[in-house]
Amino acid sequence: MPDEPTAEREPISRGAGARQRVLGAALRVLDEHGLAGFSMEAVARAAGASKATLYRHWPTAGALLVAAMDATFRPFPPPDTGHVRGDVAELLTAFVTLLRDTPFPRLLAAFIDAAERDPTLAALHADLTRRRREPMVAALVRGKERGELPDRLDPELTTDLLTSPFFYRRFVAHQPVPAGLVDEVIAGVLGPEPPGPG
Amino acid sequence: MPDEPTAEREPISRGAGARQRVLGAALRVLDEHGLAGFSMEAVARAAGASKATLYRHWPTAGALLVAAMDATFRPFPPPDTGHVRGDVAELLTAFVTLLRDTPFPRLLAAFIDAAERDPTLAALHADLTRRRREPMVAALVRGKERGELPDRLDPELTTDLLTSPFFYRRFVAHQPVPAGLVDEVIAGVLGPEPPGPG
Repeated sequence: MPDEPTAEREPISRGAGARQRVLGAALRVLDEHGLAGFSMEAVARAAGASKATLYRHWPTAGALLVAAMDATFRPFPPPDTGHVRGDVAELLTAFVTLLRDTPFPRLLAAFIDAAERDPTLAALHADLTRRRREPMVAALVRGKERGELPDRLDPELTTDLLTSPFFYRRFVAHQPVPAGLVDEVIAGVLGPEPPGPG
Repeated sequence: MPDEPTAEREPISRGAGARQRVLGAALRVLDEHGLAGFSMEAVARAAGASKATLYRHWPTAGALLVAAMDATFRPFPPPDTGHVRGDVAELLTAFVTLLRDTPFPRLLAAFIDAAERDPTLAALHADLTRRRREPMVAALVRGKERGELPDRLDPELTTDLLTSPFFYRRFVAHQPVPAGLVDEVIAGVLGPEPPGPG
């Protein structure tokens, strides 16, 4: 929900600007120095803010890191093409672009490694992932309600099946995503497209 | 193929023992000090070998690292249950155990992060992944030949779809693998099991 432009919200708007500046600085620190160089002190210096200000908003460096990733790479807007395969294709295509054209995958890779040694970071990352999945789960639930998908289909498992091949290709197989892979994955998981009406 | 115990092979056997010792030392160095502390010198010290010996076998630290992972976590033996769903279940179950009960995922996480900054390491990891996929691809090809799978099924894509949810769950969603997930993934990707004969 956008801030309402009332006098009462004004200070919050200013606060939101400062918050964005800190989050941007956090991502720069991470990109330049890796997780090893990520600390409240380094981010405060990069943002031109005091450590006390940072701690007022985020209790730990891990919480700040998750907030920075979350603010920069927001969940995709819920698609509404009117049919489930269109919605899924739109979400997966946006995800492929995110993996190909932004700093997101490099940050995610740093997270993956750090989470092995830091259970708090793993829990924060799990929560971030859960929120990022929501538009896909919602699209599949709508598809079931419209009778486009079988009743037995599990939206959570199907979200795993649809999205994980793109992570795998990027981080494990180190292969590019060829044009057409989104459609192939959808056909592989949801079955071949049924013939259209008329 | 096991070494034949002839006089002529003897020196190679001794060489293989030394090779295993170096590879074991490489994994210990990685586990204790992370990739940042992984160097030919550190591994030579841990193995009680000279750097020259290491360089005779592996041209770079990256090549040594891949060889160490490869020697420790060999591709699963090809299953032969007589039907494709049994073979796939056996391979995926072995993989779930590998992710749950061994140092493999921690090493893989370090790889994922390091590959973002080192294209040579990414290429080596891609090659390792390709070899690790072979038993699954072969099981699916056999399933097609036996008429258990549709002709249109792409064994490479299907291997992505079958294996990637387990990587995703471990490294991105940070969720345990519940009992039954292997069967659910197989049903989700290959379709519900057809009724058996009789």
